[in-house]
Amino acid sequence: MNKVITISREFGSGGREFGRRLAEELGFDYYDKEIISEIAKKTSMSEEFIKEVTDKKPHNLFPITFGHTFIYIDNYYPLHQANDIYIEQNNIIKEMAQRSNCIIIGRCADYILEDKDPFRIFVYADMESKVKRCKERAPEGENLNDKELRKKINSVNKGRAQYYEYYTGRNWGDKLNYDLCINTTNANIKELVEVVAKLFK
Amino acid sequence: MNKVITISREFGSGGREFGRRLAEELGFDYYDKEIISEIAKKTSMSEEFIKEVTDKKPHNLFPITFGHTFIYIDNYYPLHQANDIYIEQNNIIKEMAQRSNCIIIGRCADYILEDKDPFRIFVYADMESKVKRCKERAPEGENLNDKELRKKINSVNKGRAQYYEYYTGRNWGDKLNYDLCINTTNANIKELVEVVAKLFK
Repeated sequence: MNKVITISREFGSGGREFGRRLAEELGFDYYDKEIISEIAKKTSMSEEFIKEVTDKKPHNLFPITFGHTFIYIDNYYPLHQANDIYIEQNNIIKEMAQRSNCIIIGRCADYILEDKDPFRIFVYADMESKVKRCKERAPEGENLNDKELRKKINSVNKGRAQYYEYYTGRNWGDKLNYDLCINTTNANIKELVEVVAKLFK
Repeated sequence: MNKVITISREFGSGGREFGRRLAEELGFDYYDKEIISEIAKKTSMSEEFIKEVTDKKPHNLFPITFGHTFIYIDNYYPLHQANDIYIEQNNIIKEMAQRSNCIIIGRCADYILEDKDPFRIFVYADMESKVKRCKERAPEGENLNDKELRKKINSVNKGRAQYYEYYTGRNWGDKLNYDLCINTTNANIKELVEVVAKLFK
């Protein structure tokens, strides 16, 4: 049976870099945005839309009425689309785990693959460290101050928590859902990966 | 500088066995009940009393009055004694960390040694696994059923949490206070230690 490592991570904790480097170090396949691309191919939805849907809790599209006019809330999408995407994501993640030794980032993979007994890692850090990391890796043109970054970090992580809780019924980040929780506060991810990789060799 | 690993652990998680075996595997000194014995020597209090005091949150000894009679609540002890013990514990743990590479179990060592940057581990497990472990290792003559064991486990862990929070102002078991959190649910501690020891070699 293939070895599968799932990595859930707080935004800003360096969990994605951790996963990518760990996959390189172990010679495992690495799935992150690839999952979005595969869902897009299979559903004919845009990657952007799928990314948005899988980044937060789905909402029912309740139209609001003003007098005789229906108004749909901006940025909301119908629940059934979110559920279709989740089902597709479910199939794709199971196929990936079947294919080869791999590391899968986020997307409820720890829950979806539960019967395959993956090794489940949660990567986290303190707020100061997350702000620092976000600053160092800010996308071109983004120039948020510390307060704005804290707000963004909290918002992204809240979305991840709600999405996870909606589909799994579990608390995102609750230690009991993971085999190992790794604190990256003040850590050099490259050095950390060299050490953690030993666990799998 | 000596390498110091602190291990906080949920009652029933096998954290003590994990620590003892890890110390053996790494050739580190191991401090657990030894801390109580040293405090007893230095304070001339009994080991039993010290163990009781360091197992839960200290209380002020408020006498309750019934009419003209003072009544002291049973099992409570004066706050100043608890604080004397904490201060002695503090000194002893610092001496131990100074002496050699070592593993220290519980007793707020992660907080007390903070400026020495110890590697801080938290060991935990799900309730079913904790009940199973407690049954396997029940002291002679103890014959609790599952419900009673769950109650005991919750009570011991509540005491540990309150003691830790009282002296450190932090939440016991909060991931952010540890470098690594290890889930021992369904794990064989001996095998787990062989793997985790690689991190320190």
